[in-house]
Amino acid sequence: MDGYRPFIFNDDDEFFIIDQRFLPNIKEVKLNNLEDVYKAIKDMAVRGAPLIGIVAAFGYYLAVKNAKDFDELNQTSNVAYASLIATRPTAINLKWALESQKEVIKENAFLPVEKIIKKVRANAFSIYESQKRADYQMAQNAIALFDKPMRILTHCNTGSFATGGIGTALGIIKYSANKNLVKEIYVDETRPYFQGSRITAFELSDEKIDYKIVTDSACGILMQKNLVDCVIVGADRIARNGDVANKIGTYCLACLAKAHNVKFFVAAPESTIDRSFNDLSSIEIEIRDDSEILHFNGISLAPEGAKALYFAFDVTPHHLIDAIITEKTVYKPEFNL
Amino acid sequence: MDGYRPFIFNDDDEFFIIDQRFLPNIKEVKLNNLEDVYKAIKDMAVRGAPLIGIVAAFGYYLAVKNAKDFDELNQTSNVAYASLIATRPTAINLKWALESQKEVIKENAFLPVEKIIKKVRANAFSIYESQKRADYQMAQNAIALFDKPMRILTHCNTGSFATGGIGTALGIIKYSANKNLVKEIYVDETRPYFQGSRITAFELSDEKIDYKIVTDSACGILMQKNLVDCVIVGADRIARNGDVANKIGTYCLACLAKAHNVKFFVAAPESTIDRSFNDLSSIEIEIRDDSEILHFNGISLAPEGAKALYFAFDVTPHHLIDAIITEKTVYKPEFNL
Repeated sequence: MDGYRPFIFNDDDEFFIIDQRFLPNIKEVKLNNLEDVYKAIKDMAVRGAPLIGIVAAFGYYLAVKNAKDFDELNQTSNVAYASLIATRPTAINLKWALESQKEVIKENAFLPVEKIIKKVRANAFSIYESQKRADYQMAQNAIALFDKPMRILTHCNTGSFATGGIGTALGIIKYSANKNLVKEIYVDETRPYFQGSRITAFELSDEKIDYKIVTDSACGILMQKNLVDCVIVGADRIARNGDVANKIGTYCLACLAKAHNVKFFVAAPESTIDRSFNDLSSIEIEIRDDSEILHFNGISLAPEGAKALYFAFDVTPHHLIDAIITEKTVYKPEFNL
Repeated sequence: MDGYRPFIFNDDDEFFIIDQRFLPNIKEVKLNNLEDVYKAIKDMAVRGAPLIGIVAAFGYYLAVKNAKDFDELNQTSNVAYASLIATRPTAINLKWALESQKEVIKENAFLPVEKIIKKVRANAFSIYESQKRADYQMAQNAIALFDKPMRILTHCNTGSFATGGIGTALGIIKYSANKNLVKEIYVDETRPYFQGSRITAFELSDEKIDYKIVTDSACGILMQKNLVDCVIVGADRIARNGDVANKIGTYCLACLAKAHNVKFFVAAPESTIDRSFNDLSSIEIEIRDDSEILHFNGISLAPEGAKALYFAFDVTPHHLIDAIITEKTVYKPEFNL
């Protein structure tokens, strides 16, 4: 991503994002306060588990930056935390980033309020920078898995627009493509939000890397025709046993990969691993408003009064996963994270 | 379908169809000649394997009806056959219907041309009527498979808008729902044409039968959460060994059903069985223009210059299928059709 970044936070504390709902068209939006950030995450103007964490960290800073004393700092911090944590239930990075901000206040409670606030600001940038480093390290770690130029299928968007860096799964793909380790890239469109065709394709086009878009339902025939060597996806939460919560459809791909002897890889920063979960069998799956399925750009896709059931995520059990790639290492089964 | 039928062919030989690309909005279009019928099938204004056959049979009649002598009849017949057979490669019913029309001419060659043409017209209606009877008989045959009120997942549109009758797979579902043999209906949206959310949902709403739309990629989690008892789909072509060519995504559902111990049923008229194929391992899969994936209602879903790979069909091998329901019987494995 040379051309576009998912957000800018400048020296004057002006916070601009690209509203991802409009990609491949570029619509820049300014987020002025906590409420704006809340809405941007909630309504998926920004999405992608690591990016949600980063944007929330900046939103948290905007919420507390005008506090006059420690009481007010604490109060605005609590409001920011409670509001932002409620935006999306599945992405663990969100929680991780907000906890990290709270920790900064707690650890520096002895300092003058202005100085604490400066550290909160610096911590948001630090979360952002460390994600960028992690993305790059993930890509370097992943190439050990590629013994030949690979034909790769990916799901959703796990690139710059999901992390602010080069991306997780898509970061690996872009990095490998630039090293001629990729033979073919299949981007599934990822209904209902079209993250694949709208955002992943946008990033790949932007970097002049060839790819083909397929519907989610074409992934079976691709594997049946032996056109895919591996699937690489991101993750919103990973349990200690290697169970992975990720964008709806991930589980389908993992089942299909297993049935066709296609490798299934997950790439995510260490912050995605939630060690409070031994497995994800009982995790709450976000059910989103069905209007995202029933309409597109204001056009009805279904008759009036139609109902849809919209699980936003699914859980891929560890036994379908061949490797989990983080910035630290490549984990192999049996996973014990 | 009390309210809407996919086409009307009236006593004055006026041929109206509902352009299915606009559903759930009703747009009636008049087909005046062979060229109009060719375009309607080719561009998927009408679709659904049995309906394509029926519409082609009427189109064939329009093409030959003004022939003045037997030579002209033969010539217009050849043009009609060659043009209509080229519209869609996968639906065997199309070939079957056109062969049937040609046979009428051949068998009645001793008659005056006007009388032959009348028989061609009558044969189009006869193909239509026999499909309606077949649909109803399929539904009656299928209920032997339901030992309890079923939670059913279906794909694409296999209802009135696919056959002119009550439908094949969806006909079974509607018939069973009216007998209280259905507990839940999941309609997958069926990208890229949205036959599920636009057309199947339209028919079910029209009949006041409850259903829920899901994205194609949600079918995995539905089965993982044990919300589905069986999948019922239609077919565009069936080989002697039970291999089924059907709308893209069918194969994914069959793989998922097998992995979750969910029953997988196929419903189609006998005319769908192509006994010239022992299996479908070498069948040509229609690859359609990728603009259907890259755009929706004139809106770009992907960046400029993006490419997509659009297989319109896939093949589900017989070993993933638990029953094939026709108007004649319910076939069970090992299939020997």
